[in-house]
Amino acid sequence: MTQDDSDEYRTLSEDPECRETALPALDSWITPTERFYVRNHFSKIPDASPATWRLSIEGEVETPSNLGYEELSSLPARTVVATLECAGNSRSYLTPPAEGVGFRHGAVGNAEWTGVPLRELLSRAGPKQGTVEVLFEGADSGEEEEEGVKLEIDYARSLPLEKALDHDTLVAYQMNGETLQPVHGYPLRLIVPGWYGMASVKWLRRITVLATPYEGFFQRRRYVYIRNGEAQSNWQPVTSLQVKSLITVPRHGEVVRPGQFTVQGVAWSEGCEITRLELSTDGGRRWQDADLFGPQAAGAWRRWKSDWLATTPGHFILMCRAVDSRGNTQPASMPWNFRGYANNSIHSIAVEVPGEQ
Amino acid sequence: MTQDDSDEYRTLSEDPECRETALPALDSWITPTERFYVRNHFSKIPDASPATWRLSIEGEVETPSNLGYEELSSLPARTVVATLECAGNSRSYLTPPAEGVGFRHGAVGNAEWTGVPLRELLSRAGPKQGTVEVLFEGADSGEEEEEGVKLEIDYARSLPLEKALDHDTLVAYQMNGETLQPVHGYPLRLIVPGWYGMASVKWLRRITVLATPYEGFFQRRRYVYIRNGEAQSNWQPVTSLQVKSLITVPRHGEVVRPGQFTVQGVAWSEGCEITRLELSTDGGRRWQDADLFGPQAAGAWRRWKSDWLATTPGHFILMCRAVDSRGNTQPASMPWNFRGYANNSIHSIAVEVPGEQ
Repeated sequence: MTQDDSDEYRTLSEDPECRETALPALDSWITPTERFYVRNHFSKIPDASPATWRLSIEGEVETPSNLGYEELSSLPARTVVATLECAGNSRSYLTPPAEGVGFRHGAVGNAEWTGVPLRELLSRAGPKQGTVEVLFEGADSGEEEEEGVKLEIDYARSLPLEKALDHDTLVAYQMNGETLQPVHGYPLRLIVPGWYGMASVKWLRRITVLATPYEGFFQRRRYVYIRNGEAQSNWQPVTSLQVKSLITVPRHGEVVRPGQFTVQGVAWSEGCEITRLELSTDGGRRWQDADLFGPQAAGAWRRWKSDWLATTPGHFILMCRAVDSRGNTQPASMPWNFRGYANNSIHSIAVEVPGEQ
Repeated sequence: MTQDDSDEYRTLSEDPECRETALPALDSWITPTERFYVRNHFSKIPDASPATWRLSIEGEVETPSNLGYEELSSLPARTVVATLECAGNSRSYLTPPAEGVGFRHGAVGNAEWTGVPLRELLSRAGPKQGTVEVLFEGADSGEEEEEGVKLEIDYARSLPLEKALDHDTLVAYQMNGETLQPVHGYPLRLIVPGWYGMASVKWLRRITVLATPYEGFFQRRRYVYIRNGEAQSNWQPVTSLQVKSLITVPRHGEVVRPGQFTVQGVAWSEGCEITRLELSTDGGRRWQDADLFGPQAAGAWRRWKSDWLATTPGHFILMCRAVDSRGNTQPASMPWNFRGYANNSIHSIAVEVPGEQ
């Protein structure tokens, strides 16, 4: 079967642990932690003891430091609501098939994150003149294969200095008001609103300010766009979220009762406002404006809904497309890239309106 | 993983038995019987004894008859090479997902079929004036569910009288020079070149000439096109093959040695000639004519090949598209239908040309 699972949470891989949320379970402002998608890279979730965990801040800084978990969590905190989406979300729907964990549409979620603004930590450390990037290393490591060679590597990803200094970029220790779960990065996780999930480094243990761009495995070999015929020297790292929307209700394949029906979903973009959401209930011929509703936050998704009067029996294709405040919208089909990153093509589902029995 | 299996034969379902061939195993004129795709509808393969098997010819005919297996196989025989493709082939690649067994591209094959031309049998029986269709019933039966109601049904499908009288439509008892295998319809299978596989009724036991169109389950409920918003009264039965082509070599995801490489494949249409095959090695920007080669037969596929000088390292999208003698060609993407029938959109694969190590 090529259809969506009926379970609320789907396991794609046990080792490394990869799970995604079924679309109906995304139909809320906050995604419950226990159903929040997981995309880990290695077998082992790092052992973390708050008593011994240290986060070091080093590299091109005036004052390197090494903070304990208690010390960090006693600093002034900030809470942001932010949507994380795995770069490989919706990869399954690319043609030709893309390489990687076969996520459908559920490797996305919206959560409340609490922690210390990274800019506070960087400001205390004092980046030197001429620094360009900040590198984040997790405590997770393992083997990756590249061109037949096995490499033992740690998970590490960098941000441009400017993004690192964004006041919503956090070193988080809470998710949805509770201590981070081990699978989500306990004790500390970088949270980078507006960027794909690979930037939000879990089990964060080292921050290094750099004078030259980082060229490590997860920056130059994975989480890069590899397009048709593109030379390796042109591979670009995956960075910010593309505008995207999903239908969460009804579910693909659902039989809906004839009459008025409310179609609902979520829409997000890179830290900018969703200004318009259109719904089609006839396979893309006509589009109607949906209502945006519920809470709003810069890096968070927006909920939307639209009434549909389903009177004629038949099978109908519902599609949604979002427009953001920069005028970006979603393509009917996204050009292929080797690992299927950032597929934000228009989501479509089919539902049945039954006839008289 | 969303990629093609590396095995030569892939099982999609054990009950009913459904199997497809991996693309590299389709890279020949004749598909070996042991890897030929299977799409059965019910659990049980009918028990068949040549000594007791009877094929009845009845309905609107002057002279009904009831032939034994020995009698049939002693009649003048005809051998045709014909491509059978399951109507649900390539269904997995539709958006939104289509209902049904998740075939990739391998539910197709080309075989040599030997049997009695149906027109000979019909001509002996003498259809009466005003007959319009001929119904074919297999010995397979089981339960199907429709709108919550379970039905006990036999597999049955009809043909217009004209197609039934085509001189290549056979009541076959051999496949690739050997007695039919049970899974492929032993002892008798209707072979309808130019139509999707559902017309080639297996375990054939009754032929009924009809004065009115057949309205049974597999004619009006299954193997029908159900498009967006279409009323049931407009559902059209699936009939003839749409023009289509596949790349069989290289395989999706293959790492090809830099240098000259021969891309190969197959192409077919409804009993008419493939006049042109184009290959793109840059994701569809430019197209080059491929060479058609090997044997030709009216209802059979044609092989094609084209050289590709793969010199630059990178990941490349290869695509092929066929044109037939009626000017039909393949769409970039096929409009959705509920059961995903007849998906003949352009086949694309991605291959890697490695760089210097």
